[in-house]
Amino acid sequence: MSNTVISSATREHIIGPDNPFTIIGERINPTGRKILAEEMKAGDFSRVEADALAQVAAGAQMLDVNAGIPLADEPALLAKAIQLVQSITDVPLSIDSSIIDALEAGLSVYQGKALVNSVTGEDEVLERVLPLVARYKAAVVAISNDETGISEDPDERFKVAKKIVERASDFGIPACDVVIDPLVMPIGAMRFAGRQVFDILGRIRDELGCNTTCGASNISFGLPERNGINGAFLSMAISAGMTSAITNPCHEEVMRSVMAADVLMGNDPDCLAWIRKYRAAPVEGTEGARGRRVTRRRRS
Amino acid sequence: MSNTVISSATREHIIGPDNPFTIIGERINPTGRKILAEEMKAGDFSRVEADALAQVAAGAQMLDVNAGIPLADEPALLAKAIQLVQSITDVPLSIDSSIIDALEAGLSVYQGKALVNSVTGEDEVLERVLPLVARYKAAVVAISNDETGISEDPDERFKVAKKIVERASDFGIPACDVVIDPLVMPIGAMRFAGRQVFDILGRIRDELGCNTTCGASNISFGLPERNGINGAFLSMAISAGMTSAITNPCHEEVMRSVMAADVLMGNDPDCLAWIRKYRAAPVEGTEGARGRRVTRRRRS
Repeated sequence: MSNTVISSATREHIIGPDNPFTIIGERINPTGRKILAEEMKAGDFSRVEADALAQVAAGAQMLDVNAGIPLADEPALLAKAIQLVQSITDVPLSIDSSIIDALEAGLSVYQGKALVNSVTGEDEVLERVLPLVARYKAAVVAISNDETGISEDPDERFKVAKKIVERASDFGIPACDVVIDPLVMPIGAMRFAGRQVFDILGRIRDELGCNTTCGASNISFGLPERNGINGAFLSMAISAGMTSAITNPCHEEVMRSVMAADVLMGNDPDCLAWIRKYRAAPVEGTEGARGRRVTRRRRS
Repeated sequence: MSNTVISSATREHIIGPDNPFTIIGERINPTGRKILAEEMKAGDFSRVEADALAQVAAGAQMLDVNAGIPLADEPALLAKAIQLVQSITDVPLSIDSSIIDALEAGLSVYQGKALVNSVTGEDEVLERVLPLVARYKAAVVAISNDETGISEDPDERFKVAKKIVERASDFGIPACDVVIDPLVMPIGAMRFAGRQVFDILGRIRDELGCNTTCGASNISFGLPERNGINGAFLSMAISAGMTSAITNPCHEEVMRSVMAADVLMGNDPDCLAWIRKYRAAPVEGTEGARGRRVTRRRRS
């Protein structure tokens, strides 16, 4: 399975199965954030700046930037947001829009190799987004739905993903530059949404060799104690092969689950990142450390 | 894949892949607990009683009972502990000893179908423990090490597990009554201990059709913030197929990971157990609930 390399002007980041899991910070997005939307529309990007810095401080290795505000000049706003974020952080960005002109405006000012978020399996969308991705030698998030919507059948969702990878290849975009989003549905509404995603993730890894991402917090929509569900979901998805997620890094509990999953996948060598972050925390006594199941000797 | 049915006098419990994950409380064990060992040796079982009630209250569906105290009359102590625990709780028990006479003493007073903890792949042990398990129609924990110790090669550990299942079958013990412990090694010492266990768990599920258990807290031996590692490990192991663990249910964080994993495996229908436990907690705003990746419409 291959690595996806994304970069800013000065820094490369690898999304890949033998690297720490990639958190793409989701906060710079006015959808559902009325104050942010109003401020951005009025040209005030102070909150974008604060969100960028806070997410990087919390551990995001990439940031998603979205400027989708109804009746605003989205291409101009997105380009401005990207330039601003690149001027204050060195993490690579995901350029997030459903408007082709906005993606192009973002790509035209971006320094480095961006992740374009996103393309779907709809033919018209493929034909418009993929040439852009190819032209700017970017990578792209591929969302596994098409004209028929989001299938509840995991085989159908896998087929859409495969179709996008093949179409991307026609445009000269290698599979390693297609990051597939298998689509995470709310577990409160779909009992087997979790098992389905874990299955699809394994197939994408084994059959397509692509990296994967998702909007992780959708899984807990409507439930209480969402961070508990989100954290467990991420660690389970990581063991099923997921290599990145677009989520909020500012939830300590969720980040702890991700860091623990890195340890458990062998992607935090010598547990250095874990120990650096948590060694100040009180170490529990010897409970569970007695190795009872491993070292005991049978006495008769 | 089959279910393992364990029972007390009045209650059946199912260990199985389509049921909530089974927590077998580990606390009633004097190994490494000096005060408990001294009290039990002196005939004071008040702490055993308190530990039994606390673990059931914290969500353990079964309890492990061990009376392994050097220079004490372990068979008598184990029988007494089992009778006491069965008199105050109705959860089924795991009878835990490395002494055959103690296992037999425990089985002889046990009401219901017990889980015998444990047998290894050592021929001498198999020949002594399996007839006992068969005679009492119990189930048994099979630890995947043999005369050569614990192999670091997952294939070897799988082979030992397979050998135990086959030998059990010779004694009339069905595979559904063999619960395999693939052995969890400390991740701080063995970088790929996690990936190895996840792989073995999948093979046990797919090739042997057996349920599985482990001493979960071994994974975090020597690391800070152990509950963070233990919780993530359990949720990842559950998605890899693990169906029970011998662990301490009195850590809220670990239990939350297990309950979240039940939700995500579809084993908490309508998320009822989750909602019952956490609905009093403050529900977060609409963050992440806007379904941005699912419902948005492409506008150009």
